[in-house]
Amino acid sequence: MRGVVMHAPGDVRVEDREYPAIAAPSDAIIRLAATCVCGSDLWPYRGIEPVDEPRPMGHEYVGIVEEVGDEVNSIKPGQFVIGSFFASDNTCEICRAGYQTSCVHREPAAPGGAQAQYLRVPLADGTLVATPDVPSADLIPSFLAASDVLGTGWFGAAAAQAGPGKTVAVVGDGAVGLLAVLAAKQLGAERIIAMSRHESRQKLALEYGATDIVTERGDKGVARIKELTGGLGAHSVVEAVGTQESMMQAIRSTRPGGHVGYVGVSHGVALDGQDLFFSHVHLHGGPAPVRQYLPTLIELIWSRSIDPGKVFDLELPLDEAAEAYRAMDERRAIKVLLQP
Amino acid sequence: MRGVVMHAPGDVRVEDREYPAIAAPSDAIIRLAATCVCGSDLWPYRGIEPVDEPRPMGHEYVGIVEEVGDEVNSIKPGQFVIGSFFASDNTCEICRAGYQTSCVHREPAAPGGAQAQYLRVPLADGTLVATPDVPSADLIPSFLAASDVLGTGWFGAAAAQAGPGKTVAVVGDGAVGLLAVLAAKQLGAERIIAMSRHESRQKLALEYGATDIVTERGDKGVARIKELTGGLGAHSVVEAVGTQESMMQAIRSTRPGGHVGYVGVSHGVALDGQDLFFSHVHLHGGPAPVRQYLPTLIELIWSRSIDPGKVFDLELPLDEAAEAYRAMDERRAIKVLLQP
Repeated sequence: MRGVVMHAPGDVRVEDREYPAIAAPSDAIIRLAATCVCGSDLWPYRGIEPVDEPRPMGHEYVGIVEEVGDEVNSIKPGQFVIGSFFASDNTCEICRAGYQTSCVHREPAAPGGAQAQYLRVPLADGTLVATPDVPSADLIPSFLAASDVLGTGWFGAAAAQAGPGKTVAVVGDGAVGLLAVLAAKQLGAERIIAMSRHESRQKLALEYGATDIVTERGDKGVARIKELTGGLGAHSVVEAVGTQESMMQAIRSTRPGGHVGYVGVSHGVALDGQDLFFSHVHLHGGPAPVRQYLPTLIELIWSRSIDPGKVFDLELPLDEAAEAYRAMDERRAIKVLLQP
Repeated sequence: MRGVVMHAPGDVRVEDREYPAIAAPSDAIIRLAATCVCGSDLWPYRGIEPVDEPRPMGHEYVGIVEEVGDEVNSIKPGQFVIGSFFASDNTCEICRAGYQTSCVHREPAAPGGAQAQYLRVPLADGTLVATPDVPSADLIPSFLAASDVLGTGWFGAAAAQAGPGKTVAVVGDGAVGLLAVLAAKQLGAERIIAMSRHESRQKLALEYGATDIVTERGDKGVARIKELTGGLGAHSVVEAVGTQESMMQAIRSTRPGGHVGYVGVSHGVALDGQDLFFSHVHLHGGPAPVRQYLPTLIELIWSRSIDPGKVFDLELPLDEAAEAYRAMDERRAIKVLLQP
């Protein structure tokens, strides 16, 4: 089968690889209906994370179950399924508390790389969720979004306690940030401020429910959020980038007693204890427990109540993965769907 | 009148000072019934915080109202009152959300220093709370504790979401840590682990409701907490010290999805973004909004349901303040009450 391998920063190749096989009785094999490139794939692509050996890429996936191991009970061949980037047993105390991405048996859900034609998923019962039926083709991008970026944006909004009566600000206009806007809207937020300086992303943010756009960044961005909130700051701020600047922008845009939900994978961030102490904010985030939200997200997509698939503004055949990475790296595309 | 002034690290003197006078129409003047030395007073005493000029000390107070400004309505001369270390209007949006220590009109509540015979308190209506009547002498230490350490421990436990079914760990066995144990018990926690290696403090922790004592610190302390919680960590951890070591001990003792309530005034703490990201904890804390809790705390003390005053294990006349600082610095006393 064909699959994407990163050999070095900037060097992404599509290669002939072994078909995956059941390795443990809790595994499932999936024939992918769609996969995609994640913002976090750009960290090694840009050399910010090291690439020490050839690395199969991708952790977002939807597709048809081909085969399951002997111990798999809740998932059957022929079903269309979605899973998160971490496999979880969904039965341990941490999973039951809603933190499946910290499951005591957590392991990568796509050990062989999801940017491929087939994928082995461990802990299939606890990781995969089936849709009511095989969806029509136009819904596939939205279900693919649920595998990571929608679930991550949703967790960001939930961790920031977005809800009725709240003013929510979103730092970051990538797919996760845009879907945090969608999530905040679904969670009933009164006012949603998207921080973006890119016209096409602003447009999608407004479509997803943003009520205000702030183009300023850093100190000026914080000042603008304060201006829009009676000098106090937003109740809820979602951080969807992962840099020192974006994290400080999020914390400083939040009013005392407010909530920061941070879901951008943290790179080189150090928080000063005293600044944090006197900010009086609540801080929560980390790898989104997408599994927790999948039943809700599947229902919303199946009923066409939300259209998260719009974040895919470019679709390419899997064999053109290198161009997909380039388009995202150069910010020509928000997110690229790959057809396996 | 007599009042405590710090001239340099380790140099605490009791001096003749001006009687305070009403300076703004929202002020009140209080004749102190008791005052005390705070753990945070030890930061400048130990030279960790600079002392650039002679500094009137103290921010914990209870006493009888002597005089009020023209605009003060809710507080009357003759009442016995308690207030927090920050003055607040208690009417702004931040106060109404329960964060009076970040009030938009916040200012120090004891600008002239509370380790004195008399004190001017600004924003008296929003800051001071009167007891039902003038309390008997044996209740005074408990009401004094409510002015800071009890309210701070309470906020730590509340920020850590201590409650029914929860295992709560407390890092720090000073007055705040011990009163966080008391608060966790009052909030209904199932199990309360006090981290302490001092026998007298362990004893008080057990009296206040601790179910377990852990004497190990750092990595070993974390390992012990994990051992006691099925390998997962505590649901709720209160940090009541403010150092890098104690903060990391608190974060690493908390299970994924759990809550850290940090109330130790942060000194030299830097949190690594990636560690925090993958810890999956909730982090909340800062200067405790004691004002929020005062009505509840006063009721519990007035009805003799709690006895937070026991943290004062040494009482000295105000004139012996230097010895009070020495006793706390050398950890001979948990907390020293000063008789004005």
